[in-house]
Amino acid sequence: MNDLLRKPRKVYVSRKIEFNAAHRLFNPLCTEEQNIALYGKCSNSYGHGHNYLLEITLCGIVDMQTGFLFDLKELKSILEYEITARFDHKHLNHDVPELQNCIPTTEVLAILIWDILEERLLTINNQELVLHEVTIHETGKNSVRYRGE
Amino acid sequence: MNDLLRKPRKVYVSRKIEFNAAHRLFNPLCTEEQNIALYGKCSNSYGHGHNYLLEITLCGIVDMQTGFLFDLKELKSILEYEITARFDHKHLNHDVPELQNCIPTTEVLAILIWDILEERLLTINNQELVLHEVTIHETGKNSVRYRGE
Amino acid sequence: MNDLLRKPRKVYVSRKIEFNAAHRLFNPLCTEEQNIALYGKCSNSYGHGHNYLLEITLCGIVDMQTGFLFDLKELKSILEYEITARFDHKHLNHDVPELQNCIPTTEVLAILIWDILEERLLTINNQELVLHEVTIHETGKNSVRYRGE
Amino acid sequence: MNDLLRKPRKVYVSRKIEFNAAHRLFNPLCTEEQNIALYGKCSNSYGHGHNYLLEITLCGIVDMQTGFLFDLKELKSILEYEITARFDHKHLNHDVPELQNCIPTTEVLAILIWDILEERLLTINNQELVLHEVTIHETGKNSVRYRGE
Amino acid sequence: MNDLLRKPRKVYVSRKIEFNAAHRLFNPLCTEEQNIALYGKCSNSYGHGHNYLLEITLCGIVDMQTGFLFDLKELKSILEYEITARFDHKHLNHDVPELQNCIPTTEVLAILIWDILEERLLTINNQELVLHEVTIHETGKNSVRYRGE
Amino acid sequence: MNDLLRKPRKVYVSRKIEFNAAHRLFNPLCTEEQNIALYGKCSNSYGHGHNYLLEITLCGIVDMQTGFLFDLKELKSILEYEITARFDHKHLNHDVPELQNCIPTTEVLAILIWDILEERLLTINNQELVLHEVTIHETGKNSVRYRGE
Repeated sequence: MNDLLRKPRKVYVSRKIEFNAAHRLFNPLCTEEQNIALYGKCSNSYGHGHNYLLEITLCGIVDMQTGFLFDLKELKSILEYEITARFDHKHLNHDVPELQNCIPTTEVLAILIWDILEERLLTINNQELVLHEVTIHETGKNSVRYRGE
Repeated sequence: MNDLLRKPRKVYVSRKIEFNAAHRLFNPLCTEEQNIALYGKCSNSYGHGHNYLLEITLCGIVDMQTGFLFDLKELKSILEYEITARFDHKHLNHDVPELQNCIPTTEVLAILIWDILEERLLTINNQELVLHEVTIHETGKNSVRYRGE
Repeated sequence: MNDLLRKPRKVYVSRKIEFNAAHRLFNPLCTEEQNIALYGKCSNSYGHGHNYLLEITLCGIVDMQTGFLFDLKELKSILEYEITARFDHKHLNHDVPELQNCIPTTEVLAILIWDILEERLLTINNQELVLHEVTIHETGKNSVRYRGE
Repeated sequence: MNDLLRKPRKVYVSRKIEFNAAHRLFNPLCTEEQNIALYGKCSNSYGHGHNYLLEITLCGIVDMQTGFLFDLKELKSILEYEITARFDHKHLNHDVPELQNCIPTTEVLAILIWDILEERLLTINNQELVLHEVTIHETGKNSVRYRGE
Repeated sequence: MNDLLRKPRKVYVSRKIEFNAAHRLFNPLCTEEQNIALYGKCSNSYGHGHNYLLEITLCGIVDMQTGFLFDLKELKSILEYEITARFDHKHLNHDVPELQNCIPTTEVLAILIWDILEERLLTINNQELVLHEVTIHETGKNSVRYRGE
Repeated sequence: MNDLLRKPRKVYVSRKIEFNAAHRLFNPLCTEEQNIALYGKCSNSYGHGHNYLLEITLCGIVDMQTGFLFDLKELKSILEYEITARFDHKHLNHDVPELQNCIPTTEVLAILIWDILEERLLTINNQELVLHEVTIHETGKNSVRYRGE
């Protein structure tokens, strides 16, 4: 089977999930005025929110037997456990322990998700599979990509 | 000019705007358990959020001189004043006076926006122009339409 | 609570789900030539497929206590049972008993889904809630709406 | 075949096409200042342009033999002849005879397309098929619908 | 003409096309149980289907005379011949000779399309033009990229 | 604050804006026939137009104090001044001085926007911030990326 896979083929597989969360951009070490200068209406006291669209990309050699890079059912359950359970329908400033000492910008969120998923992928018995990219679309206009660099 | 408009033509003009807000579905008259049964994770204490996509539709006869139903520059400034300033980057439960005695479901939000815009349109000197529909997309999957019925 | 709901408010609530299915447009009562004339490449022997995007719209009076038209968690489970389990990852010509004596055009599919959901909603103890519209997007270009007319 | 069609079923079938055109909003009977007051930067001398997304909706009873409202191959060729050939890659103010005495607003364009398609559908031998709606999305934010009213 | 192109400029030009196809993920060398364990409902007997969205990206130096990387009319006709004719409205397991000995996962499909297009581009008299990337979106959530690595 | 930023993290931040413009692909040094052979209907005399969707990507190390790569409010105002004011509601062949000696293909436009933004970013006091990519989507099907190579 899968003659096309006789030579090793490196592919990039992406999966999108959405989570709905609130956040507030506010630095407690700065004055109210400094926060407004820095973060504008993103620093409003009770926070606002987004439908965050997360796209994660894995990279590696396609498995010759299955024709898959990685079992999407397994990926789906990893994302449910690591991402949805942690971030969906949460207030990022109050409900996410990993962000307690952080300002939850999209940049910081992309980096945290990379760190979480990279560590989780280490527990999978597949040395060739690597996390390639984490992209978060905060709105239809703004997005941040992180590649572990 | 505008021969095509010699007979009156009734059109529907829609404009979309987005606002990013947090909300919490929680009824203070019910117990914590009742709230969880009703609203699930939407009742989490600090709220979560959405990129709300609002589409409003006006209806009326096209103006024979301008070829417009209504000046989009004026509509844009009405929406900025009535919608963006009121809802964008806000926590609907804490920051919007009109929602203080309400559970900010998408249904309630659509109705409130209808009431606000319908009253505002009355101040415009155009008897034939009416608000036809307010639609809110809370996520890419869920939306609510209200037509003043 | 919910002062805005003191007077009855009729809203339209829509929910989208996707199912991935194969189909073949072929009338066994016609010749091969007639089928090709009618259905073109849609009559290819083994079928082809689509990511069908289904949007269903319910209509009724918003509940004054909850601020909901209908509990979305319940709607979600109805759609999973009635639609996803029946159509997702299926070949419409072979795997769906209700379509055995039908040509599975998008029109026919929209009508079948209306019939299924309308019957299912009768079992719900809410006389004011009605099915308003079923829309199927077969591709990004083609869609069919049915309203029970 | 098509047991579901034993009783007449009225459906709405929509098809989307895109055309890329330039236009300028300018009334030669007004002064330059009046045009700027009315149309702002839309009155710039040489025009600007859009990827116009047109959605047309037909309505009628599904054919019991074919399971179609109308043959999409035929609709496609009508739209190519009546819409694409007339508007695509054109400057609406200079290249479209039907718009010579008009200000090509989206409202006017929707009305013109309705008139063209309604007349064209009369030549089709199907008394039950009617044009239901013409929608033009000028941008992702603005759209106009016309229903022949 | 084209002063901006006096120094060589390397650009990436992408074109999207869609094809609607059925497929089944099933390995005839495995038992039914193994197939279900591996592929779940994707192994259903008659297959299911997708609106596959293909994006291909070419890379090279912009031509100083034309301002193009490559004539889009020619690219369009190549894609029609090599992709649409081969995959559109087909059942990938039955109708595509190149996939007869393969499990038609999205990974395998992306690799096959790369191989087809790379060979086809060799016949074009432009040494500097290379295929850069093939991306297939199987659904709005899952996609696979291949870059010939 | 921002423990996650104790080690330097390189991110890619993208922002999308749209501008609506007309253009004509025509080389005055060639004959009418040559222009038609090269550019087809894109060479029509008065031009046609597009909703150009521009996505620019910046790259650099996240600021440990703010959690931002770059202040989005500042980026927004740069794009308004450099892009919207220059290209929006313009005819690229007539109204944009920088394109006077160019054929305004999407390739050329992407390169020009890169050159403009790269020079503008030099005036910002942040040595680590670089322009990474400029992408223009001319339609939903065609796009061009330029990375300064």
